[in-house]
Amino acid sequence: MNTGGRLFRISLYGESHGPAVGVVIDGCPAGIPLSEDDFIADLARRTPGAEGTTPRRESDRPTVLSGVFKGHTSGSPIHIEFKNENTKPEDYADFTKIPRPGHADFSATIKYAGWQDPRGSGHFSGRITVGLVAAGVVAKKILNAFAPVVFDTKLLQAGGSHNIDEAVRAAKNAGDSIGALVEVRVRGVPAGWGEPFFDAAESVIAHYLFAVPAVRGVEFGDGFAAAAMRGSAHNDPFISQDGRTARNGAGGINGGITNGNDIVLRVAVKPASSISVAQHTLDFSRDEMIDLEIRGRHDFCIALRSAVVLEAATACALADLALAARAGKPWQSNIPWRKA
Amino acid sequence: MNTGGRLFRISLYGESHGPAVGVVIDGCPAGIPLSEDDFIADLARRTPGAEGTTPRRESDRPTVLSGVFKGHTSGSPIHIEFKNENTKPEDYADFTKIPRPGHADFSATIKYAGWQDPRGSGHFSGRITVGLVAAGVVAKKILNAFAPVVFDTKLLQAGGSHNIDEAVRAAKNAGDSIGALVEVRVRGVPAGWGEPFFDAAESVIAHYLFAVPAVRGVEFGDGFAAAAMRGSAHNDPFISQDGRTARNGAGGINGGITNGNDIVLRVAVKPASSISVAQHTLDFSRDEMIDLEIRGRHDFCIALRSAVVLEAATACALADLALAARAGKPWQSNIPWRKA
Amino acid sequence: MNTGGRLFRISLYGESHGPAVGVVIDGCPAGIPLSEDDFIADLARRTPGAEGTTPRRESDRPTVLSGVFKGHTSGSPIHIEFKNENTKPEDYADFTKIPRPGHADFSATIKYAGWQDPRGSGHFSGRITVGLVAAGVVAKKILNAFAPVVFDTKLLQAGGSHNIDEAVRAAKNAGDSIGALVEVRVRGVPAGWGEPFFDAAESVIAHYLFAVPAVRGVEFGDGFAAAAMRGSAHNDPFISQDGRTARNGAGGINGGITNGNDIVLRVAVKPASSISVAQHTLDFSRDEMIDLEIRGRHDFCIALRSAVVLEAATACALADLALAARAGKPWQSNIPWRKA
Amino acid sequence: MNTGGRLFRISLYGESHGPAVGVVIDGCPAGIPLSEDDFIADLARRTPGAEGTTPRRESDRPTVLSGVFKGHTSGSPIHIEFKNENTKPEDYADFTKIPRPGHADFSATIKYAGWQDPRGSGHFSGRITVGLVAAGVVAKKILNAFAPVVFDTKLLQAGGSHNIDEAVRAAKNAGDSIGALVEVRVRGVPAGWGEPFFDAAESVIAHYLFAVPAVRGVEFGDGFAAAAMRGSAHNDPFISQDGRTARNGAGGINGGITNGNDIVLRVAVKPASSISVAQHTLDFSRDEMIDLEIRGRHDFCIALRSAVVLEAATACALADLALAARAGKPWQSNIPWRKA
Repeated sequence: MNTGGRLFRISLYGESHGPAVGVVIDGCPAGIPLSEDDFIADLARRTPGAEGTTPRRESDRPTVLSGVFKGHTSGSPIHIEFKNENTKPEDYADFTKIPRPGHADFSATIKYAGWQDPRGSGHFSGRITVGLVAAGVVAKKILNAFAPVVFDTKLLQAGGSHNIDEAVRAAKNAGDSIGALVEVRVRGVPAGWGEPFFDAAESVIAHYLFAVPAVRGVEFGDGFAAAAMRGSAHNDPFISQDGRTARNGAGGINGGITNGNDIVLRVAVKPASSISVAQHTLDFSRDEMIDLEIRGRHDFCIALRSAVVLEAATACALADLALAARAGKPWQSNIPWRKA
Repeated sequence: MNTGGRLFRISLYGESHGPAVGVVIDGCPAGIPLSEDDFIADLARRTPGAEGTTPRRESDRPTVLSGVFKGHTSGSPIHIEFKNENTKPEDYADFTKIPRPGHADFSATIKYAGWQDPRGSGHFSGRITVGLVAAGVVAKKILNAFAPVVFDTKLLQAGGSHNIDEAVRAAKNAGDSIGALVEVRVRGVPAGWGEPFFDAAESVIAHYLFAVPAVRGVEFGDGFAAAAMRGSAHNDPFISQDGRTARNGAGGINGGITNGNDIVLRVAVKPASSISVAQHTLDFSRDEMIDLEIRGRHDFCIALRSAVVLEAATACALADLALAARAGKPWQSNIPWRKA
Repeated sequence: MNTGGRLFRISLYGESHGPAVGVVIDGCPAGIPLSEDDFIADLARRTPGAEGTTPRRESDRPTVLSGVFKGHTSGSPIHIEFKNENTKPEDYADFTKIPRPGHADFSATIKYAGWQDPRGSGHFSGRITVGLVAAGVVAKKILNAFAPVVFDTKLLQAGGSHNIDEAVRAAKNAGDSIGALVEVRVRGVPAGWGEPFFDAAESVIAHYLFAVPAVRGVEFGDGFAAAAMRGSAHNDPFISQDGRTARNGAGGINGGITNGNDIVLRVAVKPASSISVAQHTLDFSRDEMIDLEIRGRHDFCIALRSAVVLEAATACALADLALAARAGKPWQSNIPWRKA
Repeated sequence: MNTGGRLFRISLYGESHGPAVGVVIDGCPAGIPLSEDDFIADLARRTPGAEGTTPRRESDRPTVLSGVFKGHTSGSPIHIEFKNENTKPEDYADFTKIPRPGHADFSATIKYAGWQDPRGSGHFSGRITVGLVAAGVVAKKILNAFAPVVFDTKLLQAGGSHNIDEAVRAAKNAGDSIGALVEVRVRGVPAGWGEPFFDAAESVIAHYLFAVPAVRGVEFGDGFAAAAMRGSAHNDPFISQDGRTARNGAGGINGGITNGNDIVLRVAVKPASSISVAQHTLDFSRDEMIDLEIRGRHDFCIALRSAVVLEAATACALADLALAARAGKPWQSNIPWRKA
């Protein structure tokens, strides 16, 4: 399913070497200022060009085809399109017969019975995430209609090292790729978003995060470290009436509901599967093991570009939760320490 | 939202000290053998009684109130109810004024404006997961209509130690609790389940897993370790025509689609928030810090009981993906290495 | 699918001769006063006993098993259960082999491959609508949190006659049944609920209305008469700043969005399919035409009882639309005639 | 919400005078032959030009921007775009201050607080239905993968008259518009599609039909006539093992499930609200009644063009039901008269 969200809904479409990719966003309230310029900063963060990213020039210019009128959202669906340029439809390797290790070539071939578009990974290309970044920009606008919400996203490590530039360079020199650990921190989220069980804030956010290609793990607050902790260490005492806790070990969420502290989450991004070094793998057509060398443009550390995608995914999830919380807000208060 | 799933849909209801908890399951195909006995084994796995679990006697006897006729699913919704027994409605502490650290008391109070049922944690009680375990039993039946799918779930660590019994005992003696690391392994899942982006297999599974109380992190295959790996090490060559890979570093999923290898995932379960040791936290009513001692029945290691819940959550997610894959299966094959 | 709604979600379950039927309601905001007494009036309206309705005594006593605490909704799912009493599980005819004309016996047998519960029509029994009536009561409570919304539902005709009692009596004496025309009028709905296209107010309301057994047609405002009208006659001039129109030919909805006038709709309810008079139809087992006489308790005019069900269906749809409108409400106004 | 469907999902976007309108279709199985030529016939049916339709030249050339590879669906989302040509963005009347009677101008202004795009009715323009027609073409392709399904759609009456051409001409000469009655008949739908209650075939179909602008009523089979019938007349005996009935009074659906007979439904389409004759209505800005004359291009009988839209809406609904039925099909048969 390429449509996500309950109230803030996004539909992604497109293939790497088709004419265009984009996103249709439904459920954005009317009257929010929005222009094409608003997309520039976030789109620039996923643009290739920095060391470690693919040299392919992409057209990252968004065209807003609907849903915006006189500089404000109009309440109808917002369609943001990105033309694919610099594609060479005939210039692609078809990995259907020799599926790349770590890639969707094999599983997609089974699922779609071989009918999928294989050019440049088709719909499985990282290219498709440009629409998610655009949706994230709109989501952030919605969030800021609720409260001054600020995102702070960064790579904590690449290839296991804190010295990220150096690790990327080493991978590049080796014709290899490296994974990375990305942290997304969101300040200013009010308490009360999210619901127990199937719309738990972690559930909805993780759903979006795992929709981003190459994500292998998601953790909130103390995350996997909590598995090794005692309750007396992990529990996090409240220290102020607005719900502030001593050390935010829960990453801003208790019982699936935001508690007013920063949302803190970390995402494990695997190394890109397309690498120059030879890989010994199966040629399905001939049913024999061969040495596969993948030529062309590679990302040495996709996390450099996917950081903003993960931030956007988090923003989309939070916008959906924010609108749902708004819908369900009680009309009367029964909070004992807020009475009188 | 307490309803999950697109085709296999489950709706949980109930509170810890109300008359009953349960689940309504919609979308189970007709004609699958099902009896109340089928629930016993999995329900027993989350029954308290083992060391480290709460001594409260719960009624874990399922009553199937609809959807089953003459020993088979009838195609209509399956309602499985569990009466709450041994509850003492008047015998509960109200943590609305002094929210427990690490618990949903505060965030739920904000969300529901103080109207939530606070007795025994109400709808936030682990008690509610009994319905999820029941749904998991039905989900497994569906999965086995597709293929012989087998679940293997275990605690890898508790409190950071592989010696789980000892770690639990130590926590118990300290009046404390410990977290744990749970692995769910699913054998026999066919290739081709899941879809790119918002119904990626990891997205749907993680959505369900994070719906289980106390989950702090979810990872697939190499998981967070992949963030420190190189592509040449993480990539996983195919070694047989059925998609088998050398070491299953992807945990059975590429591009959001199952690849026929075992689904392998790990879940970080935090320590239970209710502990006997005193905690210095805010009394919201009086706006002063106090020492909170939580009396009563505690789980020292909730992961002992939630392992089967996490397994059930995985089963529910997979059943939903399996039915969706069945709906969308191509009518014709274009797979080059399966032709002729 | 037995779950309806996006924000106000209801899940029906149960069979006519099973132990219980009921509904799980999710998405009701917390803090709304609700007690079991609130259900009595509407449930009484679908209780058999009046002339033209089946003499079977049903237990229409609702038991609220979750979601209500101290007389208010708690924000968690509301489960309302109705025990089936006076059922005689062995005392039922199985119409699988000789499907009743006009009934779901045949189509259900194909869909469920014969596994459905045939006792007293199983899940296809009108009995299941008791849960919908209960959900309607909760929906009305939500609507009244927005505005003083009042429902006025009545039979306009039965068997084509305005003299409803007489028409029912005639059908009863003939061992036959009659259809009826039901009007639902809703006063007090604010302008601005509903959305273009797939959540058009008519779409959502009609979706719920056609979910009620025996509905053959739904029309809004001028309805089918509009097909024979000219624009100059059907168009409906606005006459006051609050959107009041001269004659409400649109039934309170323009472009899928409520316009502040009364919602007016009419529903065609077909005659009950179970009748005493012999029907010449196919015995599928023997593949020959036979004369079928259906014995037992019949409704002569089901619309007498389904009127309140249709009202409840409308209320559920409106509650869903109301919550969605609340979620998406613009933060700023740009209405020219409301400025300054 | 501008996204419809559970398995076959369509997202419409665009405004009348924006750069483009279109549809993103998700959930179409891979491997179905599809080319841009396939859209021509249905699109031509809603093209203006025939007497009674607006003289505006529209670009009804579809551009398939994704989801199709080498002449077959690829399994990824299908985006079909239609450029808006011949628009004159500055050449439009803004009906925000003087909302047209019978139109969405007023209700949209309230809902979107005046932020909606008013040019040529914006997102409320009939122009948007071009995407629905395109989606219908894809839906029909899916239906034909199940069975040879054939649509037969026609106007039964216009302005209450069977002499449609003459009625349209008379309306045109009067500067007025007329409504019409449209019948959609679908042959070849197998028994077993649809589900009781919230995915009843009538519910899902009616949901889509009422999403089409100007629809005032929907009825199936005997429809509103059934309200005046007796059961002995409306009931419809089965006459053959494949479920054929004597006169198909149910319109092909029993208990929300298709029974193998033709789906027969009728839709009441109201007269277009934009007419040349003067209308006495409120000027909201000045709060006084004025005589409104609407200049420009009008449809005298929109049903001439919306017939194919209603057919497409029906096809989309059926495709969704077909895929759901495929997902839930029992693995074993228990039908007594099909055994042995």
